[in-house]
Amino acid sequence: MSSTVLYMSMSLDGMIAGPNVTLDNGLGDRGERLHEWPLPGDHGDANRTIYDEFMTTGAIVAGAGTFEPAEGWGGDHHDGVEIYVLSRHPAPAWTANWSNVHYLNDVETAIAQARRAAGDKYVLMHGASTAQRALNAGLLDELEIHLIPVLLGDGVRLFEHLGVQHRELERVRVIEGEGDVTHLRYRVRH
Amino acid sequence: MSSTVLYMSMSLDGMIAGPNVTLDNGLGDRGERLHEWPLPGDHGDANRTIYDEFMTTGAIVAGAGTFEPAEGWGGDHHDGVEIYVLSRHPAPAWTANWSNVHYLNDVETAIAQARRAAGDKYVLMHGASTAQRALNAGLLDELEIHLIPVLLGDGVRLFEHLGVQHRELERVRVIEGEGDVTHLRYRVRH
Repeated sequence: MSSTVLYMSMSLDGMIAGPNVTLDNGLGDRGERLHEWPLPGDHGDANRTIYDEFMTTGAIVAGAGTFEPAEGWGGDHHDGVEIYVLSRHPAPAWTANWSNVHYLNDVETAIAQARRAAGDKYVLMHGASTAQRALNAGLLDELEIHLIPVLLGDGVRLFEHLGVQHRELERVRVIEGEGDVTHLRYRVRH
Repeated sequence: MSSTVLYMSMSLDGMIAGPNVTLDNGLGDRGERLHEWPLPGDHGDANRTIYDEFMTTGAIVAGAGTFEPAEGWGGDHHDGVEIYVLSRHPAPAWTANWSNVHYLNDVETAIAQARRAAGDKYVLMHGASTAQRALNAGLLDELEIHLIPVLLGDGVRLFEHLGVQHRELERVRVIEGEGDVTHLRYRVRH
């Protein structure tokens, strides 16, 4: 069965966005610092490896808080794969022409459908609350954290409000990327 | 001049202790999970390298919140080096016979004295609030984070209340330790 993998860029102090996130400022103040490494043209070989991996996943599960500020990636994150968006709200009108975009509020249904759509490829998971909901449902299989060499000091945390569910991880890979970005891959022990 | 290095064990979700920290429960619930790797007898070669390094530092600066629950390490962290304890309170009576233990409330003075005492060795910094005060004063030179493969879900964070001081880091070393502990060393760019 297809595995789910959370791909997230995170500062050493645990932030995935800067402070003052709004729809027009989706990464928060200075949050773009976390997303320099995968910019086109700036890849080194190690960062390219990771970038290529997440661009060959077979389906996407993302929170509306990730999908909407990114303008839904124009309806195509990569290769037209199915995109499952977790939201308490219905799909906004501007997504109406994208038949591969599905709004749901149930993380279990979203992941089940995404696994089916992904076939033998990975399901790319994206967003802090999506990660937390999947973790708490026992449905997150792996994490790939791109650890950015910066302390933002303030902002939006990847790991917040998890409750006290203790989760053991298995480190499966460490790649020292260019720009001092460290790609850490873990498997969640179930 | 002697450099200051923060040595801290941290879960992937940024915790350095579990929830419900008290004087009698200094690591918080399940916090001992973060401190298994340097236990005597459990070292592998990689973890031993890191352990030996921090046991050869020339002086210590720690917060009272670290020092006191650890019962002052019996007055000797290692080799009888000078220990500077940051606290708003005077030294407790049980430290009275330890001439190498110094209570201060000023992080700049503590670090200046520790650097002098350390000579050409590193100053070991320990504790979250000590780290934050040293960072904000521009007096933290390096960080050695022992990244533990666990999500605690709740507890005491290493990086909290930093304000919005953006700090760039330079990755200087990654060591894949035993037990899936990853030792990440960074230099703070001043």
